[in-house]
Amino acid sequence: MMSRGILVVVSGFSGAGKGTLMKSLLEQYDNYALSVSATTRSPRAGEVDGREYFFIKKEAFEKMIDSGALYEYARYADNYYGTPRQYVDLKLEAGKDVILEIEVQGASKIKQRFPDAVLIFVTPPSIDELKRRLIGRGTEDEATILKRLSRAKEEGALMASYDYILVNDRLDEAVRELHAIIRAEHSSSRRKHDLIGKLCRELDDL
Amino acid sequence: MMSRGILVVVSGFSGAGKGTLMKSLLEQYDNYALSVSATTRSPRAGEVDGREYFFIKKEAFEKMIDSGALYEYARYADNYYGTPRQYVDLKLEAGKDVILEIEVQGASKIKQRFPDAVLIFVTPPSIDELKRRLIGRGTEDEATILKRLSRAKEEGALMASYDYILVNDRLDEAVRELHAIIRAEHSSSRRKHDLIGKLCRELDDL
Repeated sequence: MMSRGILVVVSGFSGAGKGTLMKSLLEQYDNYALSVSATTRSPRAGEVDGREYFFIKKEAFEKMIDSGALYEYARYADNYYGTPRQYVDLKLEAGKDVILEIEVQGASKIKQRFPDAVLIFVTPPSIDELKRRLIGRGTEDEATILKRLSRAKEEGALMASYDYILVNDRLDEAVRELHAIIRAEHSSSRRKHDLIGKLCRELDDL
Repeated sequence: MMSRGILVVVSGFSGAGKGTLMKSLLEQYDNYALSVSATTRSPRAGEVDGREYFFIKKEAFEKMIDSGALYEYARYADNYYGTPRQYVDLKLEAGKDVILEIEVQGASKIKQRFPDAVLIFVTPPSIDELKRRLIGRGTEDEATILKRLSRAKEEGALMASYDYILVNDRLDEAVRELHAIIRAEHSSSRRKHDLIGKLCRELDDL
């Protein structure tokens, strides 16, 4: 019996290493599918349509909103970002655990809509380390770094509402930890109603 | 910083393979300590004091009850069984995850006393398989097997109150699953208050 996959939401501070973490997880295990968000912003250098995002026009995005084709969406800096539902549904049905890498407001919308979703917050071991990573990237100017840190304050306030806090100190450790969390969730008794019901019926028939 | 270990309760149907599971888990990973229960019943052939149980006199057991030296105890067929607290406390302090292999009533007492304990129920994939394993052992007569199955009915009724249901189909899979569950629990946000507090203070100081 193929069991339905789990919906997993991964959020975390910008600079926590979510992208690398997801990449390694998908390379090492084959039971995951990564949801690709849709956005109306323009692709940056190196971004590929359908890989980083589905890049679509504003009118198309608004049509998706109206037809209920998105599980959550938000507007930042005049651009829309959202999670198309079709891919998520197909993969869950196929038994894959589907990962949404989305920010904290989107995560909270998903949890309201799917109380069984698992919410994981990724953080470096300290905020000093977060600063080091943001500066170390060398790709952002000081204003951008300050903006990210200020956003980290808002995100940090919502950290406690996540189901798990994943400390990304050493990448390989963090990947194994992430896999363990999702694997363990499959054995959670709130996901085992069918099995418990079956065993109880079999015991009654003894 | 050494963090305190987790208290893990493992129960399950007689014949579910808990003993073999615990043995393999302890052989494969070194972060676990198995609590040894105290009992007033006589040792059976092959049982070693301090390994299967601490075999003690009734008077000594009752003294332990009176002095609060047990985390839980119960009386079955005129014999006492209980969990001495000292070993559990020492190992938890030392950062070990301590496993109590106890029956369902004891498990529920532990959960009341330690709401943070993780309760795991071990079951074969079906009750038919449970019967096959009990009969296959060849060590018990029919009356004993029937008694165990009748007890399974009582135990099954409490299964849903456990945090996790662990299906022991293939041993190596089940050991990895058990390890994943306990590992994941360490990242549960309800066990990460200290880290969340520290990160929030560091963010405030930015």
